[in-house]
Order: sequence, then C-alpha cells, then structure tokens
Amino acid sequence: MDTACRKIEFLSALAELDGLVVVLVRPRNPLNIGAAARAMSNFGAHRLRLVNPYAPGFREARSAVGASDLLETAEEFKTVAEAVADCTQVVGTTAVRHRVLPDPVHRLDENSASEIRSHLQTKRVALLFGSEKIGLTKQDFSHCHRLLTIPTTQKNISMNLGQAVAVSLYELARSAPLKSSPDDFTPATAGEAELITQCLLEALRISGYVKPGTEAMFERKARRLVLRFKLEAYDAKLLLGMVRQILWKLRQPPKA
Amino acid sequence: MDTACRKIEFLSALAELDGLVVVLVRPRNPLNIGAAARAMSNFGAHRLRLVNPYAPGFREARSAVGASDLLETAEEFKTVAEAVADCTQVVGTTAVRHRVLPDPVHRLDENSASEIRSHLQTKRVALLFGSEKIGLTKQDFSHCHRLLTIPTTQKNISMNLGQAVAVSLYELARSAPLKSSPDDFTPATAGEAELITQCLLEALRISGYVKPGTEAMFERKARRLVLRFKLEAYDAKLLLGMVRQILWKLRQPPKA
Repeated sequence: MDTACRKIEFLSALAELDGLVVVLVRPRNPLNIGAAARAMSNFGAHRLRLVNPYAPGFREARSAVGASDLLETAEEFKTVAEAVADCTQVVGTTAVRHRVLPDPVHRLDENSASEIRSHLQTKRVALLFGSEKIGLTKQDFSHCHRLLTIPTTQKNISMNLGQAVAVSLYELARSAPLKSSPDDFTPATAGEAELITQCLLEALRISGYVKPGTEAMFERKARRLVLRFKLEAYDAKLLLGMVRQILWKLRQPPKA
Repeated sequence: MDTACRKIEFLSALAELDGLVVVLVRPRNPLNIGAAARAMSNFGAHRLRLVNPYAPGFREARSAVGASDLLETAEEFKTVAEAVADCTQVVGTTAVRHRVLPDPVHRLDENSASEIRSHLQTKRVALLFGSEKIGLTKQDFSHCHRLLTIPTTQKNISMNLGQAVAVSLYELARSAPLKSSPDDFTPATAGEAELITQCLLEALRISGYVKPGTEAMFERKARRLVLRFKLEAYDAKLLLGMVRQILWKLRQPPKA
C-alpha cells in the first residue's frame, strides 16, 4: 500500500467537527489564539468564538502571517451567554485545581468524547476554554452542562491553552459517536434556557426571594437549576410562557 | 465523591513516562521548545534532548521566565545517532505529506501507543520530532524503527511542534501497555546497532561496494537493514565482533 493510500485511509475514519463551537473566554496571548485556530484547522473544527478577548492580542493574532481563515471569521462576544446561545450543549474545560466545582468533572477520554460526538451528529456543542491565567470562573461554569478535564500528572496540571485545545480536539476527532439509536429528543438551546433563567431571576427579585448581596450567587444557582431540567425545545417554550406570565402579573401595580 | 478524590482517581490511571526520551531535531523557535517541555511536564515525561537546536532559540527558551527544570536538564547533541544511542526503540513522527517514506506509517492511536508503552515498561524509547519547517529528513528517518503520524484532516496536516508533542504524550500517557506476557527479549540499543552499521559501511567502502556519490543513500540503506534485524543485545555483540574482524582483515596491507 503506498503512502498516499495509507493517509487517505486514516482520514476516512475522521469525522468533521462541523457542529463544534470552540469558545475562548478572555484569551490574552495572540500566540495562543493563533495556536487554538491552528489546532482547529488540523482537526476539522471551523467555528471559533471569543468572549472579551484582550483587544491588542486578538488584533495581533488576526494580523499574524499565515493567520487562518478561521481567525478571519472568528466571532467576538461580550458574554459567555451570547457566545453559546445557539448551542444545545455547553462543555467547560478545567484543570480542576483546588477549587470546589459545582458538578462532577468528567475526564477527557474516549467515552466522554464519544458522548459529545453523538450530540454533534445533529446539534451544536460549545467547548469552553478559560483565560491563560485563571481559566474559567464560577460564573462561566454556571453556563456549562458538563465539565471536562484533561488527565495530567499531579505535578503540573496546568496546560498551555493552545495545547489544551489541540489535545481536546484530537480526542474528539478520533472518537466515534456512541452506537445507541439516534434519539428524537430536541434539546433547548443554551439561549432558550438563559431566557428562562433571566425571567425566573427577575420574578425572584420582585418577589423578594433574592437578598441584597447574593445576586451573583443566585444567578449562578438559578442558571444551573434550569440547565439541570435538560429541557426539550417544546418544554422550554412552555416554561418560558409560564414564567413570563407570572412575571407580567408580578409587575402589575397593586390594586388601589 | 469530592473533587480532590476524583482528580486522584484520574491520576492513578496515568503511568509515568520515565523511559521516554523526547528528541527535538533542529528546533528553531524558543516558544516551541518551551511548549514541548511544558507538555512533557504535564504528561510525566522528563528526558528532553535536542539535536542541533538553533542556538539563540535554545538560549532564549532556557532563560524564559518559568522555564522548567526540564529545560535546565535538557541535553544537546550534534547528531540523531548520538541522541538516541541508549534507546532500544526509535520512533519518528511525520505528517506524511507527499514524500515517499521508507516504511509503513502507523497512525497515533491506542494500539500504537500501547505498543510503545509496553516497550517503556523495561526499556527506553526515543520519540523524534522534526524542525518546524521541514520536519524530519530521510537521514533522520533512517534511525527510526517505526514512524508515527497524528491523524488530522487532509486540509491541514501540518501541526504546530508544541501541539504535536502535547497530543502524542497525551495518547501515550492515557494508553495502557499491552497485556501480553512480558518478553525476555533484550533488544540492542540504537547505539549498538549504529556501531554495526558504521563498521559494515566501512567494510563496504573498502570493498568497493559503495559507488562514489551514493554514500549518503547507502548509509541510510545499511542503517535501515541493521534496524530490520531487530537484534537482541547478545546478537548485536556477536555480529559486531564478526564485522570488526572482517574490517580488520580488509585493512591489512596486501602481501608483498
């Protein structure tokens, strides 16, 4: 078998990561942004989004020699909520470290990658990477359906951003989707869930449920609660209608 | 289960890559040298060797803030032969591209990684990465027992050096050694095989087997032939003794 044939055979086993959205949250270093884009292009992912990138860094990455089309078409967002709004699964990456995380952390491996690949067959998945220095924050995590960590030695668990993107996409590209029958579950998008969260929070504020000074914590709690509902698209619309109606009622001036 | 426990459980499945020697051949960019060292430290590999690094690049990498102990203890060599001399398996990495390679190229995956891990249980393996621009040369390949490629999309097969190191080490760290019974085969080191190759070449030169202008090609051919013998340490000594004796005879002045 000649080399060209061999290479083509490898490729047929690789699926496109069309539905994958790579989200870099507050990246600073232009080299890391460029490295993330390069790894995406190596493994067939096309959608790059940046949340509040350090502006000079992003400009420099875009103007670098050989900057890919991917950087040209990268989209900028002000918030994580906006960057993941059209995705039905949001996956955060973390090195775990010493902080307490709200949810079980899954190890990046063939199993976790296959689950994501199953989802990608028909839906859009956001894969979030935090900033070089501090990673993702609690606030960022509250947008995530699940958390993923790359197994490393304990001595040095902190990976370079571009290398973490490369390893994650390699594992996603190589793992086959689960063989279970395709489900007919149409999940709500992160944007639909966020609308419910915001209405619910407003209703709780008006009702006096949220105490002063606990606003940020309650926002995370409410968001994670709604994510745990694992809403179908239909149910999301139903629930949103209910909460909106309650909110409308709460806003009525008290009768004289 | 709390987060700390979970993390520790992950780690127990990771083996140390103690016997692995990462060899960067003619690296130029200090950032790539640093990135390779960082990935090694993430995945438990300690032995970094550089063959003819671009001197200013290596100096800069070593003096970078946060440069790891790994860079401090990195060893420099003039040739690939010297850098791999104490290893019993030499694995070259390549993006395959359009050139014709002398040997089948194995895809980096659980199988190929498990084979390397089996070898690493008792022996030393060198993993070679070429320079940023041209990768490994035919001459470099002639030192390799096997070649490995990271599966990528066809559109962009060329990976960043630091990212290629990270993905390769991730796969090695996560893959368990093969379950076959430990063999009692003690392979010759690359250095022992190279000694045989050099003596054989000298004998062929004196014998007039090597035609002028074909020296480099013959060197590669002879080296690859000796590697294909898959010599045991004992047989390597035996063969070397034979070739040396023949060489001694060849060097005797003709009788008057």
